[in-house]
Amino acid sequence: MAGERPGEARVLAGGAKYVDFQTDPSRYRHWKLAVDGEVATLTMDVDENAGLFEGYQLKLNSYDLGVDIELADALQRLRFEHPGVKVVVLRSGKNRVFCAGANIRMLAGATHAHKVNFCKFTNETRNGMEDSSENSGQRFITVVNGTAAGGGYELALASDHIILADDGSASVALPEVPLLAVLPGTGGLTRVVDKRKVRRDHADFFCTIEEGIKGKRAVQWRLVDEIAPNSKLEAKIVERAKEFAAASRRNGDGKGIALTPLKRTIDGNSVRYDFVSVDIDRAARVATISIKSPDASPPADIDGMIAQGASFWPLQAARELDDAILHLRLNELDIAVLVFKSQGEGAQVLAYDAFLESNKAHWLVNEIRHYWKRVLKRIDVTSRTLVTLVEPGSCFAGTLAELVLAADRSYMLIGTREGDNRPPPSLMLSAMNFGPYPMSHGLTRLQSRFQADPSDEDRAREKIGEALEAQEAEEFGLVTFALDDIDWDDEIRVFLEERASFSPDGLTGMEANLRFAGPETMESKIFARLTAWQNWIFQRPNAVGEEGALRRYGTGERPRFDMTRV
Amino acid sequence: MAGERPGEARVLAGGAKYVDFQTDPSRYRHWKLAVDGEVATLTMDVDENAGLFEGYQLKLNSYDLGVDIELADALQRLRFEHPGVKVVVLRSGKNRVFCAGANIRMLAGATHAHKVNFCKFTNETRNGMEDSSENSGQRFITVVNGTAAGGGYELALASDHIILADDGSASVALPEVPLLAVLPGTGGLTRVVDKRKVRRDHADFFCTIEEGIKGKRAVQWRLVDEIAPNSKLEAKIVERAKEFAAASRRNGDGKGIALTPLKRTIDGNSVRYDFVSVDIDRAARVATISIKSPDASPPADIDGMIAQGASFWPLQAARELDDAILHLRLNELDIAVLVFKSQGEGAQVLAYDAFLESNKAHWLVNEIRHYWKRVLKRIDVTSRTLVTLVEPGSCFAGTLAELVLAADRSYMLIGTREGDNRPPPSLMLSAMNFGPYPMSHGLTRLQSRFQADPSDEDRAREKIGEALEAQEAEEFGLVTFALDDIDWDDEIRVFLEERASFSPDGLTGMEANLRFAGPETMESKIFARLTAWQNWIFQRPNAVGEEGALRRYGTGERPRFDMTRV
Repeated sequence: MAGERPGEARVLAGGAKYVDFQTDPSRYRHWKLAVDGEVATLTMDVDENAGLFEGYQLKLNSYDLGVDIELADALQRLRFEHPGVKVVVLRSGKNRVFCAGANIRMLAGATHAHKVNFCKFTNETRNGMEDSSENSGQRFITVVNGTAAGGGYELALASDHIILADDGSASVALPEVPLLAVLPGTGGLTRVVDKRKVRRDHADFFCTIEEGIKGKRAVQWRLVDEIAPNSKLEAKIVERAKEFAAASRRNGDGKGIALTPLKRTIDGNSVRYDFVSVDIDRAARVATISIKSPDASPPADIDGMIAQGASFWPLQAARELDDAILHLRLNELDIAVLVFKSQGEGAQVLAYDAFLESNKAHWLVNEIRHYWKRVLKRIDVTSRTLVTLVEPGSCFAGTLAELVLAADRSYMLIGTREGDNRPPPSLMLSAMNFGPYPMSHGLTRLQSRFQADPSDEDRAREKIGEALEAQEAEEFGLVTFALDDIDWDDEIRVFLEERASFSPDGLTGMEANLRFAGPETMESKIFARLTAWQNWIFQRPNAVGEEGALRRYGTGERPRFDMTRV
Repeated sequence: MAGERPGEARVLAGGAKYVDFQTDPSRYRHWKLAVDGEVATLTMDVDENAGLFEGYQLKLNSYDLGVDIELADALQRLRFEHPGVKVVVLRSGKNRVFCAGANIRMLAGATHAHKVNFCKFTNETRNGMEDSSENSGQRFITVVNGTAAGGGYELALASDHIILADDGSASVALPEVPLLAVLPGTGGLTRVVDKRKVRRDHADFFCTIEEGIKGKRAVQWRLVDEIAPNSKLEAKIVERAKEFAAASRRNGDGKGIALTPLKRTIDGNSVRYDFVSVDIDRAARVATISIKSPDASPPADIDGMIAQGASFWPLQAARELDDAILHLRLNELDIAVLVFKSQGEGAQVLAYDAFLESNKAHWLVNEIRHYWKRVLKRIDVTSRTLVTLVEPGSCFAGTLAELVLAADRSYMLIGTREGDNRPPPSLMLSAMNFGPYPMSHGLTRLQSRFQADPSDEDRAREKIGEALEAQEAEEFGLVTFALDDIDWDDEIRVFLEERASFSPDGLTGMEANLRFAGPETMESKIFARLTAWQNWIFQRPNAVGEEGALRRYGTGERPRFDMTRV
């Protein structure tokens, strides 16, 4: 369209004012979730007229962020609401097409920021599938009944087992490079060579053909696990599902708990939940995220926790925090800094941590621990400056102390404030800081922090349960700066102003490097190597320029490339 | 300047027609190399009027690619010409300034491709310092006598030991983010947290201040190893140099060998050396690199090798190949594909491999092996499609077989060609394919290739020394495709045409992901996480736009940023 600029922002469909990550199966437009004993079937059947934004149709089971929000919701419910489900069969509701991948019209018209955040969320969702398989014993079988192209095949790659229909037509493909001049950026390249261990030269061939690979060669090259003729496909699925269910160590025999709707109020400059609130200072480009400790002691036992269900504090607080982070990422693009604060009783947080630790064999406790891990990982890869302020009245203890360790910097007040009769703030560690919440590169935040001298972790472990005031916390390397009342306001103000004045791109790149010292895993490689390259390519005229491949796709005109190699 | 576009190509100074990587100490403009027994001093004293391109001055020991080419040459000569040198003291020839980093005017006026290739080369040079320390026992001590900012500090970071003058003024700094809106992209962020293990929150503070850190805090935060007042600085350097020399396991007592000038002819479409030649087909965007086997058997013993000096085939061929790759990277930006071919006797290559293996304890053999490793690593991170054609008359054996394994794809002819009475081509492995040439992520190319089933490596090991024809090589997973004479020409033509038609950016990103399956190391993280993010930032208007920080630096005008976070 004349005058249309690459990366122009689209308008949300249906008059929506923001991207909403809350949904439930009764509102799904694109997925069907059916549970039959130990086996759930998740059917992708995208409503082409229900795109998240105006201006495109979701043909051929292609997807946008809205489709993925429903998938993430379904996966979450499978973990919490269906503890009896051991196998999830992922399949298509369309004939002869599994999924055409991310919608190209959507991508061509999306801002750079939306593309990057869209890919980040879809990556997190697929990592979540693998997390469910590894840590909840919920195995995924993907049935590819037709074309699985680009993001379609990437979805299959996130599952444990891929069955491809052997009908001379169904195929898997990563045609992004030849067709669109971008990467399969939702983990595709990494999972092909790192997870499925496809030989790199085979992968090179596979990723540069438009038509994909089908039949026996797909198995020989490790792109899928098995093929089955259509006449035997359904029987094969049943057979595999039984087999995987039998091998699963998922132990939730009982009923699940209902993930009831979050109570949430969103207005111009705030988002409020029960335990979490977000306050936005637009002029300063700062969002403050406050978390309240539980207001009562943990339940006496498992039955008490089950009775509380979604209002059990660790679960409710995690859900609220998760939603808040996602809301800020997608809807508040001008915010430079996330400031974490907390209010309440650290001792209460530790009491809940003790509950989570002593009952960790229970399926629901296991789910909640892994959910906190995933929420914290989401924070780690959020491309905003993260700072945590430890002030009087705060409760950064155990699980919540991870927000201190996840921050790019933390500040802690020495002593009290004039006219404030609350005691000096303290920081407390629990067992939860020493294992259950690894970052995506495999280390806990304390391990990552103490790489220079791992014995610092042992020193910190000896302090579990103790209230550490500012200077002690600084001495133990747990906070960046301990400041007294005289310096506090000026230091924090100058820091926030400075941070808000820097180039957001420079900060994004810097933080993405400094946060992940040490090893890399397949998951962290996806966010580092793959995503960083994809972000670069999403910015290049060869992809997004007027004559670039994303813009020209489907117009009948071939893209024009600047052929300079860099 | 009105009308000047961001990223406009600069003109090479002095009427040079191409960037030349060959130099020697008699021609250095920026460095002085002095050897005194076991200790060499490498003094950086940049001639501000001797920039590689026109249009900027290299003030305050700032550098451009030309300065780094001299550094790389000096490091190479220290390894080959000075086997007695166990310690290299790196220092500045200027008062009160160590090095101001990469020249900002140069960066602001350079094309995106030049910036990326410049950073790649400077990274390789610094990795080479660490390689020398680890594998040649040549330890580096950097003496920071004044400001070491950005690339200046990154140079220090590549050394083993940093001594900072404690004069109230000398400091180390990574001011790129606050000052220029780009990253310290020559390994700085990675080395700060991964090598020096600076705590990530301290690193965050350090990387967002312009003025850097000096004195005791620089030591406490692990940014430098020690400080010394100026009155004691020289004595301290001598003391540390003696200490490191005593601990070094460098065992080259004898004389070095002279790295005599390469014989090279460059014309419009070719580069010719004795054993390596490059032929450029501009219309096809293909450069063919051919390597000849040695024309005589290896010398009988070490003395014979020393007598041959730089004309010992493994050394000469490595130097020629290295120069050819660098020439293509910097001077031939429109070339999409590098085609590797070879001619000669595989048995001769294997004979030299056997010499390199049986004499590996000798310092010169050690250097040559590590040099081949580094040349092959340079190929791995070259952002052009790499393809190797194994045809009649070729000699892809042992060390040269690494060029088959390094390729994105390889093709091997089955049998012979009509009218060609040479025997069918064969591929041969040697011990050199099973350890001495790891990629930057720590795996050999065979290990990287056989991740799906490591026993494939054992199967291949059993074939050491055997001539494998095409179908057998394909069956053993050593080549991508075995083709007969009927298909060969069409298949290769279509592949090369296809590759030349794709977006270079998409291919760069794809290849950077597929080539490095498996683990990451600090070195590979620099090329992946750090470089990929830097490439992205180098493309963003906040850095390189008309109002971006790189363009506005030094103009007195503040940059204007698009504050959207992505």
